[in-house]
Amino acid sequence: MTITGLHEQNSADVVVDSFRDTPDERLKTVLSSLVEHLHAFVKDVEPTHLEWEQAIAFLTAVGHMCDDTRQEFVLLSDVLGVSMLVDAINNRRSETATDTTVLGPFHMVSSPARELGANISLDAVGEPCVFAGQVRSVDGTPLAGARVDVWQANGAGFYDVQQPDLQPERNLRGLFVADHDGRFWLRTVVPRFYPIPDDGPVGKLLAATKRHPNRPAHIHVIAEADGHAPVTTHVFVEDSPYLDSDTVFGVKESLIRPVVLVDDPRRADQYEVANPFQLIEFDVILDPVAS
Amino acid sequence: MTITGLHEQNSADVVVDSFRDTPDERLKTVLSSLVEHLHAFVKDVEPTHLEWEQAIAFLTAVGHMCDDTRQEFVLLSDVLGVSMLVDAINNRRSETATDTTVLGPFHMVSSPARELGANISLDAVGEPCVFAGQVRSVDGTPLAGARVDVWQANGAGFYDVQQPDLQPERNLRGLFVADHDGRFWLRTVVPRFYPIPDDGPVGKLLAATKRHPNRPAHIHVIAEADGHAPVTTHVFVEDSPYLDSDTVFGVKESLIRPVVLVDDPRRADQYEVANPFQLIEFDVILDPVAS
Repeated sequence: MTITGLHEQNSADVVVDSFRDTPDERLKTVLSSLVEHLHAFVKDVEPTHLEWEQAIAFLTAVGHMCDDTRQEFVLLSDVLGVSMLVDAINNRRSETATDTTVLGPFHMVSSPARELGANISLDAVGEPCVFAGQVRSVDGTPLAGARVDVWQANGAGFYDVQQPDLQPERNLRGLFVADHDGRFWLRTVVPRFYPIPDDGPVGKLLAATKRHPNRPAHIHVIAEADGHAPVTTHVFVEDSPYLDSDTVFGVKESLIRPVVLVDDPRRADQYEVANPFQLIEFDVILDPVAS
Repeated sequence: MTITGLHEQNSADVVVDSFRDTPDERLKTVLSSLVEHLHAFVKDVEPTHLEWEQAIAFLTAVGHMCDDTRQEFVLLSDVLGVSMLVDAINNRRSETATDTTVLGPFHMVSSPARELGANISLDAVGEPCVFAGQVRSVDGTPLAGARVDVWQANGAGFYDVQQPDLQPERNLRGLFVADHDGRFWLRTVVPRFYPIPDDGPVGKLLAATKRHPNRPAHIHVIAEADGHAPVTTHVFVEDSPYLDSDTVFGVKESLIRPVVLVDDPRRADQYEVANPFQLIEFDVILDPVAS
């Protein structure tokens, strides 16, 4: 019998070979790649036994922090930029289409259907503003009847699900249907930046690396239209703190919009607000998909 | 303000840059390397969102399996060959010195000091045999008074700590002091192969890749002598099943020894056993360390 043995030189090859009988080809591919990159990492940093034990202890603490309402491994993926990378890989699109960003953990409840112009701020915590835009195809065609799902934190930086005792159910959530011209508009408040949960091992990691836990102020948007690839994205509020250091790396420059003070009685009437009023405008451009 | 944004092309660089203020240089180095290899892995396999969720769920299940007596992340490290790689990196030694292998999870209790020749098989489960050898320096000098720590599974494939109700405490464990000629000898039983715990997510991974969970039969040895680098290793039993497919990749050809039937009344007397008797011989060669 020949025993190959695992040495520094052949370690990844030996382990990859152990997967040779894996029935699922995709699983075999993923595990083989994982082993190659993981062993390359270990050879790169040459951990001591103590460091290896610390790594095991960290992963164990991350696992123990996970329960029905807390997913610490997703947070770890977020702060290491992996969630955004997976998002980028799965959302390659034309240069003119609206950029995507991560879904985030707060889409856990569905948005209620609301009429165009509705006020989704049920707790009135924050500065009132209008959020409006147009959904178009990349060639400029307005996409009548596009579905626009919107959710956000209030002016104190909390989502409804984080404050079930303080915020009305489904506060700051709405599912809208764009008009014949692809336009949508609604009343809301300017969201505030907020920290991701940082009382667990991922928070300790951020502290040890002198990173803050904050995400800049944003409104989440999912836009869908027939014959087009849907987009999951955020609109980021210009002048929000942390735009250049989002702890989950979600910001793209193309997604930043100012809060503009509009002095126009006709438009104020249209949005059913007092003049002047604050406005965030965000047009969404979707790629057509081959039918 | 310039927002760099995280894209497929720059993702690792952007995240590595976020660690720029990390006070601990070693932590910064390790995290930077981790991010580079992790992002390279993700770009290599291009996981779908569903696959990414499955990876998160797997890691979460591994974490939830860990408790005071079960370390599923260590098992994961073991079956991916990472534990052996860390062992190899931390035990570079001369070609003639005894090869190392992993400590394993069963050294959780200390071995009791025993006299040379003692019988460590307190439950008598297994075929009796003598385990003997000599501890030498690489130049051949016997290392008088070397400490030899031995522990093993019984003939049914279980360690004492796995069967607290069936095996006497400290069964099959002993800490011996070699004689003036560096020799040690003791009575024991031939160990049996055994499976690592496979009722958790790591066991599911092994099943999905058609790998068995077994380790070939072995006796654990830690040998130490003044002025020399200690060695943590196993002696593997020739003819044991799974020598060529140890699920934790611990086998090295240099560590395999036969169980030999010895017909020699004088040696039988020396070991206080009936003639003929079974014998496993294992000499340990240690590297001197600069003082």
